[in-house]
Amino acid sequence: MRFATVRTPDGPRVLMDRDGTVVQLPFASLRAALEAGVHERADSFDGCETVAGPVDLAPVVADPGKIICVGHNYRAHILEMGHPLPEVPNVFSKFATALVGPQDPITLWSESTDWDWEAELALVIGRRVHGADMDEARAAIAGYTVANDISARDWQRRTSQWLLGKTFDTTTPVGPWLVSPDEVDHAADLEITCTVDGQVVQRSSTADLLFGPAELVSYLSTVMTLHPGDLVLTGTPAGVGAGRDPQVFLRAGQTVQTEIAGLGACANECVARAGRQLDKELTS
Amino acid sequence: MRFATVRTPDGPRVLMDRDGTVVQLPFASLRAALEAGVHERADSFDGCETVAGPVDLAPVVADPGKIICVGHNYRAHILEMGHPLPEVPNVFSKFATALVGPQDPITLWSESTDWDWEAELALVIGRRVHGADMDEARAAIAGYTVANDISARDWQRRTSQWLLGKTFDTTTPVGPWLVSPDEVDHAADLEITCTVDGQVVQRSSTADLLFGPAELVSYLSTVMTLHPGDLVLTGTPAGVGAGRDPQVFLRAGQTVQTEIAGLGACANECVARAGRQLDKELTS
Repeated sequence: MRFATVRTPDGPRVLMDRDGTVVQLPFASLRAALEAGVHERADSFDGCETVAGPVDLAPVVADPGKIICVGHNYRAHILEMGHPLPEVPNVFSKFATALVGPQDPITLWSESTDWDWEAELALVIGRRVHGADMDEARAAIAGYTVANDISARDWQRRTSQWLLGKTFDTTTPVGPWLVSPDEVDHAADLEITCTVDGQVVQRSSTADLLFGPAELVSYLSTVMTLHPGDLVLTGTPAGVGAGRDPQVFLRAGQTVQTEIAGLGACANECVARAGRQLDKELTS
Repeated sequence: MRFATVRTPDGPRVLMDRDGTVVQLPFASLRAALEAGVHERADSFDGCETVAGPVDLAPVVADPGKIICVGHNYRAHILEMGHPLPEVPNVFSKFATALVGPQDPITLWSESTDWDWEAELALVIGRRVHGADMDEARAAIAGYTVANDISARDWQRRTSQWLLGKTFDTTTPVGPWLVSPDEVDHAADLEITCTVDGQVVQRSSTADLLFGPAELVSYLSTVMTLHPGDLVLTGTPAGVGAGRDPQVFLRAGQTVQTEIAGLGACANECVARAGRQLDKELTS
């Protein structure tokens, strides 16, 4: 079972794909659909209108109540950087204003010159949980999707907290579809690949995740109640541009393709856009 | 002009106070009310039903699209800690699940023993802005309120990113009222005080803010579009418990009062609650 958010002339709508038959559900957001439990009673919507032909996909969840991101979480990447394996996940966030759909442009704002890629497995919460054990955590995952935590490295490192480098408007692709856990064995071992203009820059497997999906949900739910629609980006494998010598960053006109076997791909063109430099006003 | 969110038997509602007359507005959230521009057309609501007597106040904005927090931002505090004045704000976030009303309990979860106080001036966005200059930023501020960025110091420092120590459920008081900028001269010089069981632990003035409200909004809007209801916590002055020798942390039964002259006070009792320790499951 798969879900997507599609843009229509009447506003956003949710699509459901069961065994290749795509129907449009009576919800304007996947968050609302998950709150209503569509993923646990798909049969109720068998009579909905079928959809054929091309669709304009929005971020798979456009309005999550939380976007939670995890730092270094692939074993090989941590070890090759010479770091010890962390005992707990390093967790930060971004805002919904950063999200774009799986075919939308990634905006390279002129405020940064250091736009970097971070292919990531993402999961979406389908059930309210707090203090979940591993079984409850696994059951709370509505499904998996693909994301790229595009980062402005100079802004990320300007202060101790990474948030601003992670949450520029319209920079984080997420989609194309939310895939239910049964279709991909809870993402236990899926190949994850990032290419830039066809050249492979990241390739790994979700089997190398230090903290897996259920472990992350359980841990996060110790601190906060998770709700349907909450989005968790689980970290990126080796191969980011900032880790190269010399460093390599994205340029306007390039296409970033982020793909996870069994989940699909996002393909996003990088588009330059002028912002507004503010440093001069902030010297205190 | 002042706004609050009040709990009623029919769900949350928004109150407006104009010159001492309090009316109930036809909105279930202050975010929705600000999106509808109530703060810019208050006359339209003069006919609403008046409210008298005690009310049960919710977080002044219960469902902000963003909660943006600023690190060290009071000059005296930064200098006494021996740090240079930062050139740009250090920005992080928390989630709406952390918010409580101005009279609600603060939950001291058993996952942490290091619960600390951080009295803060907060502002709420009233108008969509991106790339705002100082004048646009000032005009985008719907008003000011009081917050306490209660922090679990051990969780905050467990990894490089502070988020988890800042976003435990039901720990961040915000309220009691949103006060329009004209009533407090854009919070240019307001006394800010935190007491624990009546003992003053923080006392400063918002005049000591390194980055003031309009400057913060302008800076943040360089990175992201800000929307009505977005909440910004502007940082805390000297006097936190973690900065003392020996360190002092909150205990169940204590009352934290957070007050800003002209804006009012939050008074919150600390209540212990058992969570669920997870460390044993996360050793990898």
